[in-house]
Amino acid sequence: MATPEDTRDIAHDIDAFKQAFRRLAAGVSVITGRTPDGLPVGFTATSLASLAAVPPMASFNMARVSTAWPAIEGTEHVLIHMLGSRNRAIAERMSGRHEDRFNGDHWQPGPAGLPLLKDVPAWMLGRIIGRHPHHGNAVVVVQIQDGALGADDEALLYFERAYHRLHPLD
Amino acid sequence: MATPEDTRDIAHDIDAFKQAFRRLAAGVSVITGRTPDGLPVGFTATSLASLAAVPPMASFNMARVSTAWPAIEGTEHVLIHMLGSRNRAIAERMSGRHEDRFNGDHWQPGPAGLPLLKDVPAWMLGRIIGRHPHHGNAVVVVQIQDGALGADDEALLYFERAYHRLHPLD
Repeated sequence: MATPEDTRDIAHDIDAFKQAFRRLAAGVSVITGRTPDGLPVGFTATSLASLAAVPPMASFNMARVSTAWPAIEGTEHVLIHMLGSRNRAIAERMSGRHEDRFNGDHWQPGPAGLPLLKDVPAWMLGRIIGRHPHHGNAVVVVQIQDGALGADDEALLYFERAYHRLHPLD
Repeated sequence: MATPEDTRDIAHDIDAFKQAFRRLAAGVSVITGRTPDGLPVGFTATSLASLAAVPPMASFNMARVSTAWPAIEGTEHVLIHMLGSRNRAIAERMSGRHEDRFNGDHWQPGPAGLPLLKDVPAWMLGRIIGRHPHHGNAVVVVQIQDGALGADDEALLYFERAYHRLHPLD
């Protein structure tokens, strides 16, 4: 079906590229770490993906101007949290004002002293085994060293700049 | 809330790792290419993620034993397709028997002669700018060179080994 949108050039039209990726729904996760100075940092991510099960590895993407980049560049470990629909407030907090992200009782010190979010469906301790810079951004690869499953939940999704839940297609 | 699951060791229990990632819902895409010999290859992916908008870049993950790996290793371009709920049959076909994946009229030759799936919400031509091997797998990074938006659709999601649609959380 032809629409006026069809003519937009994704490679040179930033808005068209962003719109294309908005059409890809994504699960929501939060990555946390500590800077070499010990400050807790973290951010909501929609790029977390499994890389392999043997050995267990995962990847996520980030900007190298991000406040969390010093933790990725200068330390060895991060915590990865899969969010459920009960965790929406955490997703919003961890993508909001930096000074508010660790202001509350939604986290506690976890493995390796890293900020561990409470009451998430799953979390993992990742050892950083790859930092692959591309222009101002980087793909980060971790090998999973620890983790646990929490109480199950409906998935939390991000699509077209809003949070969503799922329902089965059939 | 404590459950018996809480004690499972994600780092050394493959099933627990897989279960954790099943709790992360993912948008569904299809990557296509051609081997150096010209054979069309493709696969359904749940790891596609935006890396940056300027310049437009994306990443996806794959096994290096995959039938599509020779196309990634030995050629320069792939096509990336974001799927909508109307494309479920394509998602199933492109993750099913290899000999059936290009047996039908759901595709046509596209940019650079690569297999272009018909009637998807968005597609992009990616030039491969990074192949980052980790054990038997790889993170592949592409820079977007072309693409178009098709007719919009509900998102197609994969979660707990089944296809899903979305609905708004509020």
